[in-house]
Amino acid sequence: MHKPLILVTNDDGITAPGIRNLVNFMNEIGDVVVVAPNSPQSGKGHAITINSTLTYEEIQLEGPQTDFSLSGTPVDCVKFALDKILTRRPDIVVSGINHGANSSINVIYSGTMSAAVEAGVEGLQAIGFSLLDFSWDADFSQAKDYIQKIVRNVLDNPLPKGVVLNVNIPKLKAEEIKGIKVCRQANAKWEENFDERINPHGKKYFWLTGYFNNMDPGADADENALADGYISVVPVKFDLTAHEYITELEKTMNA
Amino acid sequence: MHKPLILVTNDDGITAPGIRNLVNFMNEIGDVVVVAPNSPQSGKGHAITINSTLTYEEIQLEGPQTDFSLSGTPVDCVKFALDKILTRRPDIVVSGINHGANSSINVIYSGTMSAAVEAGVEGLQAIGFSLLDFSWDADFSQAKDYIQKIVRNVLDNPLPKGVVLNVNIPKLKAEEIKGIKVCRQANAKWEENFDERINPHGKKYFWLTGYFNNMDPGADADENALADGYISVVPVKFDLTAHEYITELEKTMNA
Repeated sequence: MHKPLILVTNDDGITAPGIRNLVNFMNEIGDVVVVAPNSPQSGKGHAITINSTLTYEEIQLEGPQTDFSLSGTPVDCVKFALDKILTRRPDIVVSGINHGANSSINVIYSGTMSAAVEAGVEGLQAIGFSLLDFSWDADFSQAKDYIQKIVRNVLDNPLPKGVVLNVNIPKLKAEEIKGIKVCRQANAKWEENFDERINPHGKKYFWLTGYFNNMDPGADADENALADGYISVVPVKFDLTAHEYITELEKTMNA
Repeated sequence: MHKPLILVTNDDGITAPGIRNLVNFMNEIGDVVVVAPNSPQSGKGHAITINSTLTYEEIQLEGPQTDFSLSGTPVDCVKFALDKILTRRPDIVVSGINHGANSSINVIYSGTMSAAVEAGVEGLQAIGFSLLDFSWDADFSQAKDYIQKIVRNVLDNPLPKGVVLNVNIPKLKAEEIKGIKVCRQANAKWEENFDERINPHGKKYFWLTGYFNNMDPGADADENALADGYISVVPVKFDLTAHEYITELEKTMNA
C-alpha cells in the first residue's frame, strides 16, 4: 500500500505544541517529514529570506517522523524542503496547527497560511490548520478526527490547481463542534491601536495592537461559522487578480 | 482647490532612489507624507511586527513633503501612518517605485505590493509601482508621466472596495513604451535553487536563489504585456476565497 509523504511546517516554531500535535496526527496517515522554523514566525505573512542566509539542522524529537529546523520563515521552509531535503515531491503539505485564528483577513498576515499557499504555488496539495486558542497549553485533541478526515479527504479528492485550504477550528470540546462548514473569507479587519511606551532612555516605542472588527453578517463567512460552532474550511487561491473588474478598469485606464 | 493627501511608502527603504522619484512625482499632484521603512524590506510580503517593537523618527530630505522613517515592514508603515502620523485619512496610498518587478506571482512576496494591499484592507485607494530594473542607478524618468496619469486616474475614478492596482513598468525608454495595458496576474513561479556554501567554521549555509518560470502564454498576462513593451496594470484583490470552488468542495468535505 502506498503511504503518502506528508510535509509538515508551521509558523510558531518547530517545538510548538500545535505542530507536535499535527505531526502525531499525520504519523497515523503517512510518512512525515517536518521542516519548520527554529523560532516563532507569527505574522510573517509570505516573507522570504533574500538579504540574509539560511541554516538548518536535523533534530531529534519523539515519534517516527524526521524533523528539520530551519533558520527562516514558513515560506522559506516549504521552498527549502522541496529543493534540499525531500527526495520526492510530497503528496500533501500541512501547516500548523497554529496557536490562534487565521480566519478572514488574517489569511494574508499568517505565516501558517502563507506556507500552505507557497505549497500551492509549487503545485502541491496543501492545507493550513489553526485553532482559536492562543494558549501554549491549548487542547488540540478535539481537532484530531476532523484534521485527519480533512487530510484524507484532500488526498482522495485532490484540490484543483491553484487552490489550498484554510481550516480554522473553534475552541470547543469535541462534542460541542457542530461539524465542518465550507465558507468564504469573512469581510473583517483589524483596527490598529498602537500602544505607545517610553524606553529607559526617554525614547518612544510602539507595540502593534488593535481589535478585530467583523463587518460581515453572512452565515457562510468563516468568522460567523466559527462563532456558530463549526470548523470553517475556506478554499484559498493565489491568483489575486480581480478578474471581474478588468473590463471596467480598461475603460478608465485608457480613457 | 482640494489638494489630495498622498501617503507614500515602499519596501526598499526610505532613501531608495525609487521612492524619492515617486515622492517627487507625487509632490506635483498633492500633499505628500512619506512613512517608509528605515531599512530594506524586500521580500517581506505581508509581514507585520508583533513580537518586537517599532520606533520612528521624522527625517529631513529634499522636497516639500514630510518624511517619517519607521523601524518596521511596509505593512507596518501603512498601519502606523494611519494610526499615529496622519491627521486625516489619505486620498490615496502609493507604494514604490520598487527596484525590480512585482508582476505575476511576485505580488505575494512583495513588500511594495503588500503595503498597497494593506491600504486596500483599510478601505483606501492604493497603487503599487515597480520598475523592471534592480539597479540602484535605474532611470525612473520615463515612468513619470505614466505614473502621474495612473494616480490622477484613480483619484478621478476610484477603484471599487477591495481592489488595489499592481503597476509594473518595463525597462524601456519613454518612446519605446507602447502604453498601458490592463492585465491579469500571469501564471508563473520561481523554481528554487538554493546556493549552498560553507562558512569559515565548516557549517553549511544557503542563499535563496532560483529562476523565474513563466508558464503563461496569454497576451493579457502581465509578464507578457511587459515583454511586449507595455506598462501592466493588474487589479488585485485580497478576498482570497476561491468562490468558484465552494460548491464542489462542499460535496467532498461533507461526503
